[in-house]
Amino acid sequence: MEYPSKLIEDAVNEIAKLPGIGKKTALRLALHLLKVEEERTQSLSDALVNLRTKTQYCQRCHNISDAALCAICTGNRRDHGVICVVESTTDLIAIENTSQYNGLYHVLGGVISPIEGVSPGDLNIDSLIERVHNADGDVKEIVLALSSTMEGDTTSFFLTKKLRSYPVSITSIARGVPIGSELEYTDEITLGRSIVGRKAYEQ
Amino acid sequence: MEYPSKLIEDAVNEIAKLPGIGKKTALRLALHLLKVEEERTQSLSDALVNLRTKTQYCQRCHNISDAALCAICTGNRRDHGVICVVESTTDLIAIENTSQYNGLYHVLGGVISPIEGVSPGDLNIDSLIERVHNADGDVKEIVLALSSTMEGDTTSFFLTKKLRSYPVSITSIARGVPIGSELEYTDEITLGRSIVGRKAYEQ
Repeated sequence: MEYPSKLIEDAVNEIAKLPGIGKKTALRLALHLLKVEEERTQSLSDALVNLRTKTQYCQRCHNISDAALCAICTGNRRDHGVICVVESTTDLIAIENTSQYNGLYHVLGGVISPIEGVSPGDLNIDSLIERVHNADGDVKEIVLALSSTMEGDTTSFFLTKKLRSYPVSITSIARGVPIGSELEYTDEITLGRSIVGRKAYEQ
Repeated sequence: MEYPSKLIEDAVNEIAKLPGIGKKTALRLALHLLKVEEERTQSLSDALVNLRTKTQYCQRCHNISDAALCAICTGNRRDHGVICVVESTTDLIAIENTSQYNGLYHVLGGVISPIEGVSPGDLNIDSLIERVHNADGDVKEIVLALSSTMEGDTTSFFLTKKLRSYPVSITSIARGVPIGSELEYTDEITLGRSIVGRKAYEQ
């Protein structure tokens, strides 16, 4: 594609490097920025640079944090006996937004994937084991909340093996038919698992 | 939604102000920027600020430009006798990328839309009339390339009326069944217009 100005071209190329944004969308966004007030572009730009240069990661759970330890790890009202293991900060935020979980987290930074060249050493697994080890029995439960994919399952299995020697119960988030879904349109594997994993009806 | 860090929150809020980008996509983009090298975020940020602060508009055709007059208006190989009237720079770029047009352009900056409060005075219409007036007969043709919507048609009609007194032929881009489309699935209005507007078969 040809652009009327080098500045537009540079901006489009930079925006199009973001995931899921092609050249056409990038051009639309660039032209949008040209239309709005100059301060808006400046504040967007500042927010991005600040995000990249000032963000820290929690030393304990690897969550994104404003300080050495994140707000969740230092929270008084949090149940420090439960650690939920997630793939990414996105998943952590998703669980937090349900308001249904009150324990701590551990962000792995991905899942084991031989195809993408991600080995256990690339993930925050050692620090998880260390947390459980150092807790000296204070951590009662590890909730595995990884994707229900081959890579996620492999990682869950690997973690289970690693944690076997500690007096901690290992659980996994429930899999089954999503709320609001019709059985007819649920895929066979999910439906199969939800039948096998049936539980007592709550009355 | 709650975020683990104020920096993430600021970035998400700023990104989500862009058109077509919601909070979830904004969060995905922000987390992506955290993963890539710091220079990439810096260069994205610089490109956006440069775009906004340094971009000029062509004094003649209102296209985005690196100088007072854009590369198209100053082009020697361009046919200065034809002006294609477009809504926006996006449309100009789309036409340029077909490599089928060799004339000049005039970017209106929108179309007349009473609903959105856009009146003829808000658009670059006077400067178009002035261009035709000052050309003293050198502009032979005005090609109207506006959207085929009620607003686009209204604007085309308005321009036709304004240009009536000048010795210039006014044309419109062809409307019809898109190339590669099946007649069966073409909407009635398009198909109807394409039958009424049939032309001699090119052999």
